[in-house]
Amino acid sequence: MNDEVARVLGGDQRAISRTMTSLERRDPAVISAIKLLDHHTGHAYCIGITGPPGVGKSTLVDRLTGHLRKLGLTVGIIAVDPDSPFSGGSILGDRIRMQRHYLDSGVFIRSVSTRGQGGGLPRIVKSLVRVLDAAGKDVILVETVGVGQTELGIMGVADTVVVALMPESGDTIQALKAGVLEIADIFLVNKADREGADRMAAGIRAMLQMAAKPLQWEPPVVLTQADRGEGIEGLWARIEEHRLNLTAPADAGGYRSLLEQRRIDRRRDEFLEALQEELFQRLKARIKREQSLQSYLEDIGTGKLEPYSAAAELLDRPDLLESSFPQNE
Amino acid sequence: MNDEVARVLGGDQRAISRTMTSLERRDPAVISAIKLLDHHTGHAYCIGITGPPGVGKSTLVDRLTGHLRKLGLTVGIIAVDPDSPFSGGSILGDRIRMQRHYLDSGVFIRSVSTRGQGGGLPRIVKSLVRVLDAAGKDVILVETVGVGQTELGIMGVADTVVVALMPESGDTIQALKAGVLEIADIFLVNKADREGADRMAAGIRAMLQMAAKPLQWEPPVVLTQADRGEGIEGLWARIEEHRLNLTAPADAGGYRSLLEQRRIDRRRDEFLEALQEELFQRLKARIKREQSLQSYLEDIGTGKLEPYSAAAELLDRPDLLESSFPQNE
Repeated sequence: MNDEVARVLGGDQRAISRTMTSLERRDPAVISAIKLLDHHTGHAYCIGITGPPGVGKSTLVDRLTGHLRKLGLTVGIIAVDPDSPFSGGSILGDRIRMQRHYLDSGVFIRSVSTRGQGGGLPRIVKSLVRVLDAAGKDVILVETVGVGQTELGIMGVADTVVVALMPESGDTIQALKAGVLEIADIFLVNKADREGADRMAAGIRAMLQMAAKPLQWEPPVVLTQADRGEGIEGLWARIEEHRLNLTAPADAGGYRSLLEQRRIDRRRDEFLEALQEELFQRLKARIKREQSLQSYLEDIGTGKLEPYSAAAELLDRPDLLESSFPQNE
Repeated sequence: MNDEVARVLGGDQRAISRTMTSLERRDPAVISAIKLLDHHTGHAYCIGITGPPGVGKSTLVDRLTGHLRKLGLTVGIIAVDPDSPFSGGSILGDRIRMQRHYLDSGVFIRSVSTRGQGGGLPRIVKSLVRVLDAAGKDVILVETVGVGQTELGIMGVADTVVVALMPESGDTIQALKAGVLEIADIFLVNKADREGADRMAAGIRAMLQMAAKPLQWEPPVVLTQADRGEGIEGLWARIEEHRLNLTAPADAGGYRSLLEQRRIDRRRDEFLEALQEELFQRLKARIKREQSLQSYLEDIGTGKLEPYSAAAELLDRPDLLESSFPQNE
C-alpha cells in the first residue's frame, strides 16, 4: 500500500492536508489514494451546519468542537466559504476564533472555497469528508453559509443537518418556506438572549406542524447562546437522538437502516456529479487545445452561431468525442 | 422559415409560450427554432432583479412593468422560483399581484423553477431571454430570489443587475460582503418608510467606498416604496444611466462597448454551460439504458467502488464514450 495512504489512515495531519491539496488540484495520482482510503470509511458521523451569514455558525462549530473533544471524540471540520468571483477573497476572518483547535491533534480544520462552483456545495467536499473519515475522525462538521437553494447541497454530505437561525432575521421565515424547512434535521436558534428568540422557535414549530405528510423524524428546535457556550450540550443530545433514529432498521424486516440507505444514495449521486465534472473538464481542456474549437467559440461570441444549438450540434459530431477522451493523456 | 418561428418573431404570445415549453422539455425540434430566432436578438435590454426573500421583488417588478408600459415599452418577465426538491412546490403566491399584466399583450410573464439546477441560475433562463428578445420585447426583467453565491448567476443574463434589500435585514450587510456587493449595478432599499432605511443606504455607500480598486461605474443606491409606487421612476432613471454607461465605447479607440463585450462573453459561457448540461443528460440516459452501467452504479452504492475514482476510470474507457453519443438517437 501507498505510504501516504498509510499515513492518512494513521491520522497524520500533514498527510491528510497533502492529500486534500492533491484533490483540490485534481492531481491524477490522488485517484488511487482515494480509492484505497474509501475501504476504511463509514465510521465517521457527518454533521452539516448551515444558515444565513451572521448567525454565529463559526462560534457554534468552535463550541461544539470543544464539547466533542471533552467527550474524547476526534473532530474534522470543513468550512465552506463563499468566494467572490471578483476579489478572490474568502471570509476567513472568523476562522480566527477556531485557532485554539489548531494546536489540538484531535482536530483537523480545512477551508474550501466555493469559487467556480455555481453556487452549490463543491463536489470536492465529499472527497474531503471521505479522507477525514478514513483518517479516523469520529465526527465531521461541515459548515456552509446561506439559506436557500444553495444549501440543499449540504444534504449530499451530512448525516444530520443543523439549520442555524437567529432572532431578528426577518427574512428567515420566508427563506424557510423556500426549502430549508425540509433539509433541517435540527433547527437551532442562536443568540437566544435576543428579543424574539422564543417567538421564532414557536414559529418554526408551528410551521413543522403544517407539514403535508407526517414526518418520520420531527426536527427539534434548540436554543443556544454559542458565544457563552450555552445550549451546546443540548444540541449534541439532539444530534445523538437523530443519529439513533437514522440507525434503527427502517422497518421490521428491513436489513438497511435509513442511514445506510442515505449513504448509498449519496455515493451514487457523488459518482454522477464527479462524472459530469470530469467530463466537462476534459472537454474544456480540449477546446483550449484546438484551433478549430477556438474559432467555434469565436463564432458563438459574435453571433454567427447560437450557443444552445451549437452545443447540441457539437455533441453530435462523433469525431469530437472519440478523440476527446484518449486513454493516456 | 418555420411558421412557429415567424409567429414568435411577430410577438404571438401563445407561440412564445409553446417555444418556451419545448425548451423546457428539451424537445430536439426546438434547436433549429432557437437558432433562427437568435439572428433577431440583441435589441432587448435585460434587467436582473435579485435580493433576499421578503423584500418585495415581485411588487417592484409589477410597478416597474407598469411604468415601462406607460413609456410605451413592451416587457418580458421571467420569474425564477426556488423549488423544493421534496414538495415540488414553487412560491408562486405573490405572482398573483402580477395578474393585471396578464391581460396586457405588451407584457409576457413566465415562471421557471430552479428544480434540479443545483442552486445556480437555470441555464434555460438564457434561452428564454433570447426568445423574448427575438419576439421584440424592449425590456426583459429577470427576477431571482436569494442573496449570496446563487445569485451570481444573474450576471450571466442581465445587462443591469438591481440588488433589492430592505431595512431590518440584519443579515444583509453580511451577505453583501459575500459577493453580492460586486454583482450590483444598482442597489435598491425597498420599504423605505421603515426605520433604518437611510442608515442602510448610508451603510451600502460606505461599503462601496471601501472597494479595493476604483469602480468603472459606481452603483447608486435607490430608495423605493414599491407597494405605493414610490421611487420607481428614479429606479428607471438609474437603469437608463447605467445602460448609457455600458453602451459608451470602452476606450477612445475601442470598437466594442462594454455591453457588447459582456454579451459576447456571456454567449460563450452559455455555450460551455449548455455543452456540459447536454453531455451529462446523454450520459445519464445511457446509464439508465445499460445493464452493465447499472451494476456499476450498484457497486458504487454498496462501497465496492469509490465514486470519484470510478468516474475518472469510466471516462478512460473509450468504448463507453464512443457509443454514448450516437448521431441519431
